[in-house]
Amino acid sequence: MSEFNMANYLKFWGGKVEEFFETYITCDDEHLKGLISAMRYSLFAGGKRLRPALVYSSYGIFEGYFDKVTPFASAVEMLHTYSLIHDDLPAMDDDDMRRGKPTNHKMYGEATAILAGDGLLTKSFEVMCNKDINPDVEASLMLEAAFKLAVATGENGMVGGQFADMESEDGVFNSSVVDFIHTNKTSKLIAYCCELGAILGYGSDEDKKRMREYGMRIGLAFQIVDDILDITSTTQELGKDVGSDEARGKATYPAIHGVEQSHAKAELLIEEALEIISVYGKTAEPCREIAKFIIERKN
Amino acid sequence: MSEFNMANYLKFWGGKVEEFFETYITCDDEHLKGLISAMRYSLFAGGKRLRPALVYSSYGIFEGYFDKVTPFASAVEMLHTYSLIHDDLPAMDDDDMRRGKPTNHKMYGEATAILAGDGLLTKSFEVMCNKDINPDVEASLMLEAAFKLAVATGENGMVGGQFADMESEDGVFNSSVVDFIHTNKTSKLIAYCCELGAILGYGSDEDKKRMREYGMRIGLAFQIVDDILDITSTTQELGKDVGSDEARGKATYPAIHGVEQSHAKAELLIEEALEIISVYGKTAEPCREIAKFIIERKN
Repeated sequence: MSEFNMANYLKFWGGKVEEFFETYITCDDEHLKGLISAMRYSLFAGGKRLRPALVYSSYGIFEGYFDKVTPFASAVEMLHTYSLIHDDLPAMDDDDMRRGKPTNHKMYGEATAILAGDGLLTKSFEVMCNKDINPDVEASLMLEAAFKLAVATGENGMVGGQFADMESEDGVFNSSVVDFIHTNKTSKLIAYCCELGAILGYGSDEDKKRMREYGMRIGLAFQIVDDILDITSTTQELGKDVGSDEARGKATYPAIHGVEQSHAKAELLIEEALEIISVYGKTAEPCREIAKFIIERKN
Repeated sequence: MSEFNMANYLKFWGGKVEEFFETYITCDDEHLKGLISAMRYSLFAGGKRLRPALVYSSYGIFEGYFDKVTPFASAVEMLHTYSLIHDDLPAMDDDDMRRGKPTNHKMYGEATAILAGDGLLTKSFEVMCNKDINPDVEASLMLEAAFKLAVATGENGMVGGQFADMESEDGVFNSSVVDFIHTNKTSKLIAYCCELGAILGYGSDEDKKRMREYGMRIGLAFQIVDDILDITSTTQELGKDVGSDEARGKATYPAIHGVEQSHAKAELLIEEALEIISVYGKTAEPCREIAKFIIERKN
């Protein structure tokens, strides 16, 4: 592990979920061609695949039958992708570019983008609840996985965070609003990814709690670094417009605490995350590398 | 059953799911107030509650422990409500009125309406997969319920139907497109409601198939009657603008086959539906009444 290559690591697990998308998000009806095309466009638009990598890496602490994990890791990435499509809509963040490419509604129009998001959201639950593609996972674990995904991403999670984010756009916000947004919009889904690994790997309740807490911290650090990069990066590095948060008066960490203090906070969170998983041995090495990557990344 | 009162019957089961919404769709965080309010606005906007009534009625053929069904019937109504909110958006049907009231985005703005829809969609899976509120349903049945809900409402179901509906708005369509839209947009979710009753009531595979086929027929009849009412009804009776399908060049049954032939088709479907459930005795009486109501309704 001394020469851990994060780019290759993410690419490896990203390849697994892309294979899954290739097989399961397909078009067998002429009437649906445009819709499936829009869903696939965003799925294959070249994300970091951080969330799937977290599911695999967390799972790897407990078990090693990684193929079992692929539908779940793919479902999480589908759900994440839907949230990006809807967040980019004109009524929301109104973004033209994402990952260096035109956003979904720029390519397919607003109606199709809304439906592609709805379709991906629905599909993520379909995949997690499908006995045929998860023959080696008990019903009770699939149910736990689907239930906790919904909790992490519904009104008390990601959707609620996005709502608060929209509400804050007038530039009137304080530290507690920013914490609320980041925790709900970003951290809870990332924490879920980490807990999901423990669920699928038959971790104990304590394991699940530990992975969730590790995830909450790296998730918040991830979002703080995102906020910082929006200020310090270039459009080319980031694949989307920079400085847009400030222009919109968005509730961000640096807007409240400044760049330097925000970076210190992110570093502290990563230290805490590493401490939480220090009880695990070598199998947790990928989770440690991801924690470090989150703070060092440039896009 | 000779004096079956459909209005009271729908109101009774509607009351059950409204009690559920009252308890489970609540606001405990100041940041989410506007979002929860938007979700509740559409949930309580006074629908017919036909889908929940179908879940209860189908279940009643097989078992009588109706309280067990409430979270599932409520989840279906939440999912249906999300679809109405998204369908009404400016980028989709751009409707100002629904059930005699301003549509969600007219009340709360587009961003909140999109998120309220996303929240309700996610919540419906959360409710179906929640062991705590479904203590008397086995994990495998909950999983089957959630999986089939996703199939019925995803890209190969409701979302796909809405996509084809949007695509057809230029007025260029044929009989096969109309069949595709109605089957996917409307019939599959209604068929699912009927099958769900059999799932929760420990029906056999044959029972499930039978209820699904009954549901496909009453679902298609329901949509054909909807199309006819858009032509023959008044705005007051319908609670939304009439004649809007034709104005938009929408793919409807009457546009292809005329009102009279469409009505004959709906009647035939109801006859077939009644024939399919003729194997059941008195416990299927509510399902028979609903089938008849569908073709006789005035709004």
